[in-house]
Amino acid sequence: MHAPLSALANLRGELGRIPLTRAMGLSVEGVHGDTLVLAAPLAPNVNDKGCAFGGSLASLMTLAGWSLLELALEARALPADIYVQDSSIRYLAPVWHDFRAIAAPAPGESLDAFAATFAERGKARLRVHCRVPLPDGGDAATLDARFVALAGR
Amino acid sequence: MHAPLSALANLRGELGRIPLTRAMGLSVEGVHGDTLVLAAPLAPNVNDKGCAFGGSLASLMTLAGWSLLELALEARALPADIYVQDSSIRYLAPVWHDFRAIAAPAPGESLDAFAATFAERGKARLRVHCRVPLPDGGDAATLDARFVALAGR
Repeated sequence: MHAPLSALANLRGELGRIPLTRAMGLSVEGVHGDTLVLAAPLAPNVNDKGCAFGGSLASLMTLAGWSLLELALEARALPADIYVQDSSIRYLAPVWHDFRAIAAPAPGESLDAFAATFAERGKARLRVHCRVPLPDGGDAATLDARFVALAGR
Repeated sequence: MHAPLSALANLRGELGRIPLTRAMGLSVEGVHGDTLVLAAPLAPNVNDKGCAFGGSLASLMTLAGWSLLELALEARALPADIYVQDSSIRYLAPVWHDFRAIAAPAPGESLDAFAATFAERGKARLRVHCRVPLPDGGDAATLDARFVALAGR
C-alpha cells in the first residue's frame, strides 16, 4: 500500500482519540505493502494471570483491521466511516511479552479492489485476517473479521 | 446461581486487577440465576465516532463470560484458571449510551454440569452466549464463546 506520511499521521491522530487505545499504550508500528502492524506493551494489557488480557488482544487485532481500511482509503483521499461487522477470534497461546497485531486482507481480497468499489458506490466491504505472532513464529491469537466502509463524512 | 457475597467480592477484586477494566470503568452490576451482568459507562469507551468502541464491547462481553465461570466456581469453592478459547462476535448497531453485557450459558449448557465436571476432572469447558442490549430491547452486539477452566492454583 502506498501510504503517504500525512495519511499515517491522520491514522495515528484518529487512534489517539479513542481513550482505550491510550490506556493500552497502542502504537502504529508500520505499514508494509498490504500489511499493517500495531503494537502494545504488556504492562497495561495484563489479565489476572499476568499475561495479555483477551480483551486487549481482541481490541488490538480489531483495531489493526480497522486501521488497514482507514489507511487504504485515507491514502486515496477517500474519507469514510469504517465499522467492524463481525469477527471470529481464536486464542491459541498465552502472551507473556509486548505484542503486535498484523492485519492483511483475507485471501482473495485486495485493498485496491476494496477502494475501487468504495470510490464507485460509497460503500464497500473487506474481509481481514489478523494475527498476534509468538516469538517462535507461531500465532498467539488470530482474528477473521468483516468490515464495511460507508461514505458520509 | 447461588453466589455468596464473598465470591462476588473476590470477582470484583480479580476484575479490578486487570488494568484495562479500570480504564473502561467496568462494574459488576449483578447476578440473577445463571445470568451475570457487567456494566460500563460510554465516556471512557468511545471510538472515533463517539459511540462505543468495538474493542470495548468485545472486552466487556468476553469478561462477562469469564466472570460467569469464575463466579460459578468461586461460589462452589473450586479455584481455577479460566481462559477464553475462541469467540464469534456480531456488531449489530452502534451504542450511544452507557452499556451492559449480559452473559449466560449457551442453550444446552449448565453451570451445575460445568462445575461438576470441573470438580471431578480438574478441567471443564463451557459455551457462553453474551449480549449487549439496546434500550429498545434488541441487541447491539452478541458474542458466542468457549471457555475452559483448569485446576492448578
